[in-house]
Amino acid sequence: MLELAGASSADVREHVAAGGRLAVLAVGALEAHGPHLPLSTDTIVAERIARAVAERCDGALLPAIAYGETWATSGYPGTISLSPETVRALALDIVRGAAASGLDRVVIVNGDFGNRLPLAAAARDLAAEGLRVLVLDHPGLADAADAVRESAPAAPGMNHAEEIETSMVLASAPELVRMERAEPEYPAFPVDFGLRPVRLHEIGASAVFGDPRPATAEKGERLFAAVIDAAVAQVERFVAG
Amino acid sequence: MLELAGASSADVREHVAAGGRLAVLAVGALEAHGPHLPLSTDTIVAERIARAVAERCDGALLPAIAYGETWATSGYPGTISLSPETVRALALDIVRGAAASGLDRVVIVNGDFGNRLPLAAAARDLAAEGLRVLVLDHPGLADAADAVRESAPAAPGMNHAEEIETSMVLASAPELVRMERAEPEYPAFPVDFGLRPVRLHEIGASAVFGDPRPATAEKGERLFAAVIDAAVAQVERFVAG
Amino acid sequence: MLELAGASSADVREHVAAGGRLAVLAVGALEAHGPHLPLSTDTIVAERIARAVAERCDGALLPAIAYGETWATSGYPGTISLSPETVRALALDIVRGAAASGLDRVVIVNGDFGNRLPLAAAARDLAAEGLRVLVLDHPGLADAADAVRESAPAAPGMNHAEEIETSMVLASAPELVRMERAEPEYPAFPVDFGLRPVRLHEIGASAVFGDPRPATAEKGERLFAAVIDAAVAQVERFVAG
Amino acid sequence: MLELAGASSADVREHVAAGGRLAVLAVGALEAHGPHLPLSTDTIVAERIARAVAERCDGALLPAIAYGETWATSGYPGTISLSPETVRALALDIVRGAAASGLDRVVIVNGDFGNRLPLAAAARDLAAEGLRVLVLDHPGLADAADAVRESAPAAPGMNHAEEIETSMVLASAPELVRMERAEPEYPAFPVDFGLRPVRLHEIGASAVFGDPRPATAEKGERLFAAVIDAAVAQVERFVAG
Amino acid sequence: MLELAGASSADVREHVAAGGRLAVLAVGALEAHGPHLPLSTDTIVAERIARAVAERCDGALLPAIAYGETWATSGYPGTISLSPETVRALALDIVRGAAASGLDRVVIVNGDFGNRLPLAAAARDLAAEGLRVLVLDHPGLADAADAVRESAPAAPGMNHAEEIETSMVLASAPELVRMERAEPEYPAFPVDFGLRPVRLHEIGASAVFGDPRPATAEKGERLFAAVIDAAVAQVERFVAG
Amino acid sequence: MLELAGASSADVREHVAAGGRLAVLAVGALEAHGPHLPLSTDTIVAERIARAVAERCDGALLPAIAYGETWATSGYPGTISLSPETVRALALDIVRGAAASGLDRVVIVNGDFGNRLPLAAAARDLAAEGLRVLVLDHPGLADAADAVRESAPAAPGMNHAEEIETSMVLASAPELVRMERAEPEYPAFPVDFGLRPVRLHEIGASAVFGDPRPATAEKGERLFAAVIDAAVAQVERFVAG
Repeated sequence: MLELAGASSADVREHVAAGGRLAVLAVGALEAHGPHLPLSTDTIVAERIARAVAERCDGALLPAIAYGETWATSGYPGTISLSPETVRALALDIVRGAAASGLDRVVIVNGDFGNRLPLAAAARDLAAEGLRVLVLDHPGLADAADAVRESAPAAPGMNHAEEIETSMVLASAPELVRMERAEPEYPAFPVDFGLRPVRLHEIGASAVFGDPRPATAEKGERLFAAVIDAAVAQVERFVAG
Repeated sequence: MLELAGASSADVREHVAAGGRLAVLAVGALEAHGPHLPLSTDTIVAERIARAVAERCDGALLPAIAYGETWATSGYPGTISLSPETVRALALDIVRGAAASGLDRVVIVNGDFGNRLPLAAAARDLAAEGLRVLVLDHPGLADAADAVRESAPAAPGMNHAEEIETSMVLASAPELVRMERAEPEYPAFPVDFGLRPVRLHEIGASAVFGDPRPATAEKGERLFAAVIDAAVAQVERFVAG
Repeated sequence: MLELAGASSADVREHVAAGGRLAVLAVGALEAHGPHLPLSTDTIVAERIARAVAERCDGALLPAIAYGETWATSGYPGTISLSPETVRALALDIVRGAAASGLDRVVIVNGDFGNRLPLAAAARDLAAEGLRVLVLDHPGLADAADAVRESAPAAPGMNHAEEIETSMVLASAPELVRMERAEPEYPAFPVDFGLRPVRLHEIGASAVFGDPRPATAEKGERLFAAVIDAAVAQVERFVAG
Repeated sequence: MLELAGASSADVREHVAAGGRLAVLAVGALEAHGPHLPLSTDTIVAERIARAVAERCDGALLPAIAYGETWATSGYPGTISLSPETVRALALDIVRGAAASGLDRVVIVNGDFGNRLPLAAAARDLAAEGLRVLVLDHPGLADAADAVRESAPAAPGMNHAEEIETSMVLASAPELVRMERAEPEYPAFPVDFGLRPVRLHEIGASAVFGDPRPATAEKGERLFAAVIDAAVAQVERFVAG
Repeated sequence: MLELAGASSADVREHVAAGGRLAVLAVGALEAHGPHLPLSTDTIVAERIARAVAERCDGALLPAIAYGETWATSGYPGTISLSPETVRALALDIVRGAAASGLDRVVIVNGDFGNRLPLAAAARDLAAEGLRVLVLDHPGLADAADAVRESAPAAPGMNHAEEIETSMVLASAPELVRMERAEPEYPAFPVDFGLRPVRLHEIGASAVFGDPRPATAEKGERLFAAVIDAAVAQVERFVAG
Repeated sequence: MLELAGASSADVREHVAAGGRLAVLAVGALEAHGPHLPLSTDTIVAERIARAVAERCDGALLPAIAYGETWATSGYPGTISLSPETVRALALDIVRGAAASGLDRVVIVNGDFGNRLPLAAAARDLAAEGLRVLVLDHPGLADAADAVRESAPAAPGMNHAEEIETSMVLASAPELVRMERAEPEYPAFPVDFGLRPVRLHEIGASAVFGDPRPATAEKGERLFAAVIDAAVAQVERFVAG
């Protein structure tokens, strides 16, 4: 594994000369995750997965992007959202630049829901240029979450600042979690929730959706293990493709 | 000082309610700096200055951008350049988002030459929207560099991977510097160097421009002290404006 | 139900004055579907669902868009692909225009895989403008397909010109299907199929993925019934939201 | 003639292999045409001409675009306008896609005034790419209209929902015309009418400009015959060029 | 008449305070007009008409734009073409700026064929913003040219560097005309000339289309008189509108 | 020296065939310069320098652009500002067009502060295309101004409509200067002036910043001589590069 932030230009040349083609980029977000989790929750989670993938697949780890498309939570203090176009442009530039240095298999580990569309759009654009990108959205997380979860989700498939996400930050950056502030919130959702984009601060007051209190670092480790295994399996197929 | 990556949404609300309006963003680069310095050199330097400014002026520290516009060095392995439009878009989105959270005085500490134009263009666009941005390009560095420098610069005002920049990384992240690989390079410049944009790998082989060998951490500390003092003075005027 | 193509301006004014707010737009594609199905397969299917939704929910039926984003099949003769930006622009313009006429609940019935990203991006943009769009991608089709299918799919979830899609065209436009030319093709997929965008003509020769021979109009009717029921249920939630 | 909506990919390959290079695209509009004509009036007229051209010149008929740039009538209920950029993008994508399939002589039959500028701009862009497009704006219609017209035009050269246009819809889709609602309107025009773009609902109440009552299907047939003859003559020169 | 280039800011304030609202802008081109006419032919002609309009209608004369969209002649030495987008952007910016200073009736005197589309597109965009623009393309020139012309045109309606255009430059800037180099050229046109955009250097060698030799300054004066009269009539309607 | 406005296409071909590669373009502005100077002040100054450079370096003189990016003064009557994107687009088009005619060393003499960013951005874009541009911002003016100046500047480095700029217009276009209206203004600047973009009419009433009264044509000549010498020196390096 080569961590690019700390590597020199000569290190990259040697790594590529030795056959290294895989680069891994975490894209997170700076957005409200309730009173107990840090704004960088999505970045922390994505970065850990990206680092693990780079380690297990001998990839080059790119510096993470600490911002994402977070229009949905931009009504809460502290959320700073990129436009979809900016997220797409970042992915295009970084993948093209990595490929120009010989790192022409790029995995993007995405930690934020809002980034999905612009990253998928970038992957499509890059495919048309002949460049290969794999975007990972925490594969395996849904099943692993069902297995560890003790609290009910606020909505099907929603893991925002509740037991699951809190467990993952407890496992990775416990010093940034203030469990004494963790409070559940189960908002009433509009009848068409999930069918169209909504701004979440119109629905819930705290930016917590569910109950973070049963979260533990041990659950977080189990979740990361599941996601990383699933991610590595996909990356191996991608690299072989 | 409030470090946003580790803060919660509630922390931001309280900080702003208490009168906090200043946010500080470092924008660096991932680019070749010879065989002895890390690709993230510009980010390391900008981030340290941004943190010091945030501390001394009680600002909110935004997560750094670890990429920049580095077309000029994009011919060396490991440089991954953003387009000028992407740098501009990042600055626009982040400043608008910070202002929406109440942080409506944004200082951008820029660590990379290529970012100057797009960041200045963003500041101009934002001014037309009524938003206030101060872009700092290491104020005071030129004089401080003249005072500490023992080696000749490769070209007037050029500090790329030589004594000055190496000293600053030695002061901030010595574990990433490999002085045993530090070698001087004084390329022959084209007669019109400085008059138009050039790609540096056509001029120098190593991405070192000058002599890094006299660099010391102590010189780096003096350089940082000078730049941070000058930066704080400008930020104080900016905040008062 | 008001079919806009045949309605006059006065009809629209009366429909809206009587409380009509729902508009339904089919977006299809012109793309290769093997030697036995017409290029307009996706449009035919989407248009039938859109019409049924408009009928059952008393909506205004917009004229269909007969083109879509079909980069993936653009290597086969007859495919004419829009760029993602064009699909997005069409959706933005039409939804804004419908809303300006008072039809401010717009359902888009999408018949083409490649349209998903740009239509979702449009829905996100429109939400930020306060406009409501529901994009339907044949809800309920996967389960219904499993229930009727006699042939194996070429890849999980892939319904391109095989039994399922052929059945739906047989049910809607049998005069355009030439079953005598229907031949199965089960290509060897690259190991990373599904992980990144691919151009299908590099994988399969005929643009058929699976076996169309067991297709029947009766199966098609069952598939439509399932999708239309699921679609109407979502539209009712959307209209109530 | 090959109607692409109903053709298969194999049909296109054979048509092109046999020397077919001409494609014909109708671009219409969805816009108010008074209380007696359908919103799709422009599409109906353009589509009939396009079909006749394709038949007489053995071209491939592309599916029509049922929307157009109709800013001028967007103040009337039921008008749904595309932006000029969207019309241009549609033309660019479709012509490029047709050419990629071997149909590299594309005729666009335009039925809507507002499309003229963006279609001409697209033709200019495509010419710079080496692609050939002929945009037809109902050649011969002015003279033929003078020959059949019994009512006075509301303004010189203006055929909107009056005798001429109503005759053409009566000839093509009589079931969509409600002559019992046809009423003349001769608005007072601003002194500078024709010199700058105007929104028509500020001038006339009904979206009828002139008198539709003398319209007959027989006049419509004469008008179509004249336009189609003129169009075919131009297409023949274009194909020979 | 107020010539803005020589006026001060105070002059503009006084002119507007006294009721002045009309501004006049010439847009020309820098393009090949044979061996005997200057590259700025279109600018010279447009500027003279603009000046006369400003004088007779007491308008403010804006500085001329000396470049235009000249893709069609860009294969001849000396032609320097703007893209259509640049011409449109210039018109948008200048009209908005003039309106912001109180000059909210803007007449654009266009001297170049290629500018027609982008200027018309700009006028349409500006109309949607509520700004009024009148684009003049030498009204009355066709009839006046028929009246003075002794030589045959190379193609119907084509006045490029032949008798008509040469006469107009002889009338306005005789010192820039070298009649001793004036030679006729009557190229063979492709059969579809006029139906699609073409690059003229593929058709004619000299960039002269017709015969410049019968040109005289006196004919030029008659042509200008006719065009200026027609232009003033339209401007008066426009200003009254 | 070849003045392109008056040259023919044949002249350009001959000039380039004889080895001419240098083109010189002045970009000015139309903006308020107090009650005594014309709106075209920046254009007058830039055009004189451009002409002198073309003469001394045997370049081709392009027609000047009489508008610039002047957002900062757009609150004063008579200022008509281009957007930064328009300035950039103009530079891109003109340089590409000049290079296509063989004039592939382009010097831009910039007379307006607001043009600096977009022209520098254009130069960077053009460099990436392999095209060479030198942007000159009145080199040598600062020192020469210090040498001739009798009045105090309103702010360090600011020469707007005061002694320096007035002297230069007196030297070049004395008929456009009304010294009887020349009045000093020394506004109070905000504490952060110079750190961020500001709109000047919020600071000063007259658009004069300093004292124009000591201006003389003789000082203007000295200033031009210094700037032209410095410009020619840079152009010679640029041409040799």
